[in-house]
Amino acid sequence: MVLFRRLLGDVLRSRRMDQGRTLRQLCADARVSLGYMSEIERGQKEASSELLAAICTALDVPLSEILSDVADAVALEEAAMAVRLEKVDIGSKPLPTAARRASADGDVVASAA
Amino acid sequence: MVLFRRLLGDVLRSRRMDQGRTLRQLCADARVSLGYMSEIERGQKEASSELLAAICTALDVPLSEILSDVADAVALEEAAMAVRLEKVDIGSKPLPTAARRASADGDVVASAA
Repeated sequence: MVLFRRLLGDVLRSRRMDQGRTLRQLCADARVSLGYMSEIERGQKEASSELLAAICTALDVPLSEILSDVADAVALEEAAMAVRLEKVDIGSKPLPTAARRASADGDVVASAA
Repeated sequence: MVLFRRLLGDVLRSRRMDQGRTLRQLCADARVSLGYMSEIERGQKEASSELLAAICTALDVPLSEILSDVADAVALEEAAMAVRLEKVDIGSKPLPTAARRASADGDVVASAA
């Protein structure tokens, strides 16, 4: 299962480190305790929407940019999971829907030609 | 302040309604109580990452797609807020940084010509 808080934590930590800031500096700016922020970055605690907004302000990065980064990271994990599932399934199950559709389209094109 | 849970709620409700499903049907599939799901859709409660994953599975929409929609909605609100702030500021404050930079660049080009 792809968990939002884990990838959000990754993105927030990576943004902070890109700015060369310590966890302590960021926590002072966002008015959040060091322990809590550390758990958020490690994906162990959920950040409330208010806290997420405060962290974005402290990082001087729009929330939309953070969410867009998280969406990209989630998409990568989803793709990796799909590949793993496909490897497990090969030979044991019928073709996935998209592949069946492609195959059916192929047949139609062939009979029309 | 742009709140993640409010725009997440909007996106989740809009996806559910696009599928012509009632709140009751979705709640049964996602194994979440009707009251809680209703509060999530109205942006009044935060959804845990596990629950968000369960809702996405019940909607048959990848989490990355939901997050990408939320990022777009947040970006729109941020832009609308920036416009409102600019209107308030007009005439009372110096030019914003980008405008000052553009003006400075213009000077350099003019003196080099």
